[in-house]
Amino acid sequence: MTDLDTRVHLLLRAGGHTVATAESLTGGRLAVHLTDVPGASETYRGGIVAYATEVKSSVLQVPAELIDEHGVVSAECAQAMATGARALTGASYAVSTTGVAGPAEQEGKAPGTVFVGISGPGLLRALELDLAGERRDIQEQTCVHALEALAAILVSEETPLG
Amino acid sequence: MTDLDTRVHLLLRAGGHTVATAESLTGGRLAVHLTDVPGASETYRGGIVAYATEVKSSVLQVPAELIDEHGVVSAECAQAMATGARALTGASYAVSTTGVAGPAEQEGKAPGTVFVGISGPGLLRALELDLAGERRDIQEQTCVHALEALAAILVSEETPLG
Repeated sequence: MTDLDTRVHLLLRAGGHTVATAESLTGGRLAVHLTDVPGASETYRGGIVAYATEVKSSVLQVPAELIDEHGVVSAECAQAMATGARALTGASYAVSTTGVAGPAEQEGKAPGTVFVGISGPGLLRALELDLAGERRDIQEQTCVHALEALAAILVSEETPLG
Repeated sequence: MTDLDTRVHLLLRAGGHTVATAESLTGGRLAVHLTDVPGASETYRGGIVAYATEVKSSVLQVPAELIDEHGVVSAECAQAMATGARALTGASYAVSTTGVAGPAEQEGKAPGTVFVGISGPGLLRALELDLAGERRDIQEQTCVHALEALAAILVSEETPLG
């Protein structure tokens, strides 16, 4: 459990929010971050590890045409995965990860090419990452970036401008 | 990645099988074991982290009456979770975990009370575990027992009696 895991949990709890995950390259690691915090069941509802492409379509309802057009290593797929996880679980927010952990490239994209999606009330974003390192480093850095992005959104939501 | 993770991957691959996960108390850790192995995408299709009880029903299709009657910390729930994950992902095998990681008890059951479910072709089993240790130990031991149970089934399948 890291300070970032705890921070995300406390920000979610403070706002009365819950979160879900939809993971491809991180293969369950993002769920582990969110369930490592004592009291995780207050804020974490669940998630989908959509490792096979067909699971992204059949479980997360990512449209097959979207995958045909943009590939699974894309901002569009990341957003659709987050949207699907949020709908499936009823969580207020959902965070997704899709990309190339390596060592081989995928869809012609190099290891370290990663997209994070975040879906929330009136919000749908994607973040492109260009990460370096071994497979495990890329997976772990993806989790940290995803949690930091969610934390930033939760902070901005709690302190609206004006 | 452990030798056991690799062994399960190789046994699955040798039999032309795939696997899915349905996790409650392990919160994504079983998926991490199965995706840590190089070439995991050949055998691991995906999984569901069903942390909230409602996600067990809404995503994994565990009948609400089953939960009312037996609770989520039960052999019946473990079997229904594995059945649900197998159906959702199209994997040949599915492994589920449900139980009490602690520190608090749940449904009047002590930390360390854990059930593992395994669903496969013509096969539906549950394994009851009585584990000791801290929360993290209980989660990790659950993963090891679940993978060992799957490996034993895969071995017995490959060397039929007679």
